[in-house]
Amino acid sequence: MYPIGNLESVFSINVIGLKKSVIRELLKLTQKPGIISFAGGLPSPETFPIAEIADLAKEVIEKEGKWALQYGPTEGDPRLKEEIIKIFKKDGVSVEADNILIISASQQGLDIVGKVFLNRNDPIVLGRPSYVGALGAFRSYSAVFKGIELDDEGIRIDMLRDKLEEMRRMAEPPKFIYIVPDFQNPAGVTLSLKRRKELLEIAQEFQILVIEDTPYRQLRYVGDHIPSLYQLDKGKGYVIGLHTFSKILFPGLRLGWIVASKPIIEKFVITKQGMDLCTPPITQAIAYEYCRRGLLDSHIKDNVALYKKKRKIMLEALDKYMPKNNEIKWTRPDGGLFLWVELPKSINVEEMFYQAIDKKVAYVIGTAFYPDDGGKNAMRLNFSFPSENEIIEGVKRLAQVIKDNLKR
Amino acid sequence: MYPIGNLESVFSINVIGLKKSVIRELLKLTQKPGIISFAGGLPSPETFPIAEIADLAKEVIEKEGKWALQYGPTEGDPRLKEEIIKIFKKDGVSVEADNILIISASQQGLDIVGKVFLNRNDPIVLGRPSYVGALGAFRSYSAVFKGIELDDEGIRIDMLRDKLEEMRRMAEPPKFIYIVPDFQNPAGVTLSLKRRKELLEIAQEFQILVIEDTPYRQLRYVGDHIPSLYQLDKGKGYVIGLHTFSKILFPGLRLGWIVASKPIIEKFVITKQGMDLCTPPITQAIAYEYCRRGLLDSHIKDNVALYKKKRKIMLEALDKYMPKNNEIKWTRPDGGLFLWVELPKSINVEEMFYQAIDKKVAYVIGTAFYPDDGGKNAMRLNFSFPSENEIIEGVKRLAQVIKDNLKR
Repeated sequence: MYPIGNLESVFSINVIGLKKSVIRELLKLTQKPGIISFAGGLPSPETFPIAEIADLAKEVIEKEGKWALQYGPTEGDPRLKEEIIKIFKKDGVSVEADNILIISASQQGLDIVGKVFLNRNDPIVLGRPSYVGALGAFRSYSAVFKGIELDDEGIRIDMLRDKLEEMRRMAEPPKFIYIVPDFQNPAGVTLSLKRRKELLEIAQEFQILVIEDTPYRQLRYVGDHIPSLYQLDKGKGYVIGLHTFSKILFPGLRLGWIVASKPIIEKFVITKQGMDLCTPPITQAIAYEYCRRGLLDSHIKDNVALYKKKRKIMLEALDKYMPKNNEIKWTRPDGGLFLWVELPKSINVEEMFYQAIDKKVAYVIGTAFYPDDGGKNAMRLNFSFPSENEIIEGVKRLAQVIKDNLKR
Repeated sequence: MYPIGNLESVFSINVIGLKKSVIRELLKLTQKPGIISFAGGLPSPETFPIAEIADLAKEVIEKEGKWALQYGPTEGDPRLKEEIIKIFKKDGVSVEADNILIISASQQGLDIVGKVFLNRNDPIVLGRPSYVGALGAFRSYSAVFKGIELDDEGIRIDMLRDKLEEMRRMAEPPKFIYIVPDFQNPAGVTLSLKRRKELLEIAQEFQILVIEDTPYRQLRYVGDHIPSLYQLDKGKGYVIGLHTFSKILFPGLRLGWIVASKPIIEKFVITKQGMDLCTPPITQAIAYEYCRRGLLDSHIKDNVALYKKKRKIMLEALDKYMPKNNEIKWTRPDGGLFLWVELPKSINVEEMFYQAIDKKVAYVIGTAFYPDDGGKNAMRLNFSFPSENEIIEGVKRLAQVIKDNLKR
């Protein structure tokens, strides 16, 4: 039978290949003292409404402890759902409570999507690059990735159509298209309105679900609001939206929600029940009370003001300090937390990472975000977490490391 | 490709068959006003340390908000792990931090176990009856259940050995044995020390992992402490323990932990990362602070005193009011929240459920807990949630419903 000394023979096929992520190991290096890290994806703790949440948590537990400390419904706290309906309303979207499932932040949404849709070796279509946490979640269900290029307007719809036609010919249709349309993590690009409409036409034509993962949607610093894919779908049922409080309130609640058609939400609820019974009622009660008091909007406004400034400082520093070279370019995100730098092909960002650590600056290597072997000369930079001075100093250091590498 | 109108064609094979649980639908009926419910599995809210938690949450958020409201490590808050190590020490078990993974309560532990060990159609061995949430979690990975009878000393080791030998002959070894050794949910029986030792001998002989799910371990009202399977395994690596704060503190935190050998914890960490990145740092900080202040022990003592009394009242009421009939019997649990009633074969507990609801009393039908089609004449009764008067009045009503059914 199964020798304990040979655990590999007991692990499921899906998890056998899951390795410790390289970025996780690299991120450990970034925690050394003195390092300015553009590597994390963390909101700035200076945005956390600590005093307000402390008072509010006390009041909520005192008043509602009988419920907030007990088990809750798998679907989520109905009062929080009403607040989420209001958030959607402000975004031009009309949904009902049965279109919503409260989840333990959007990473759980990715896991639910994987569990509900993916059999082993099912193909899915997604951007190259894509959010690393989505790659991890879908890998744990042995998905096969079909990557599509991004440009400044987001995913290349012409290439998407070609890929889907090819897959149709091969009788290997994808289970879904995974996309981060707003200020994509890691590339920082936003899917244009024209492409959003084209994407939904394709979803209908090819009868494919679209997973719209949009954690930064409310964090726009430049340009005009673009309707979400969920809104543009007009209730036809092709779009499943993943949302989170992590970036608009704070991550420590581990609280988010899924919006989708009712039959899909129903299957998600049954699936989530086996995963954790329910998201903590205590964190939901805190988020509900924060929303009910009308604090969320002004909090988001403050976040936007802060991150807008940090983004500007990082772009200015890059313009000023980065070596002038046609092969070095970076995105200018309209929102979110990240921008994406491409370097000459001669540079290997994984090798350069250790030199950067020596110079006390850190980034995430581009390869981490690729569903295939791309990204060797690209990096993701975060501008939400470091202070304004750190951004300037860090970009200076990074520019020097790159210069040193160009000379070799 | 996939018509949206035919979602069944898009769902994964594992979840296609997952239906809304019958108990869940029945439980909705138990929430009508005036019904005394023995159906839930809820701790009594009168045990919740509401005022203490309210104050402590405020202090923790004020002092540590910068960390408690941020993302945390997947492994869990290292300080909380130290408190868990102390909990184990009191239970006679020596573990290190790397043997522990903090999880979003033990239901997530069951999901992780399923994801890490189960391929589609993998057989597993478990009691009949078994905890319904475990059945749900393992069903979502398309496990094949091999049920083993329980008696007053827990799972029948002789039958377990026979089953394992049969499976070995068929070259279909189980991935693991799932067991709730202490005050089993639903049956209320406790695995004797002799059987624990025999079970571990079998685990070694057949090279099989044992999942020890023990949410009520600290809630013993009668008799002597029995060492856990994890303790008796002496670090050989055959036992994976699932633990939770739900029953010893309160469920609303959704906080628990897994204890296992380091290579298993390492794989669990990678797997959990794709599931939810981390358990909320805010709930972990609250639990840590509660433990650090030394409040947990006296809280558990209070719980034990309360539930011990309720258990006694329920047993006395059953002795007094239940019809005298050789075919009617119930377990006398030494701890936990539940006892198990068996009725004459002529009674169908699902049909009788609606009559019970008419008489304003509710239970969980035995069939919910069976990995096969057993349990048609059995029911689970909870004594932790209802008040003492409700227990007496509810048992009276239930006894009357059973009497009415015996006459038919």
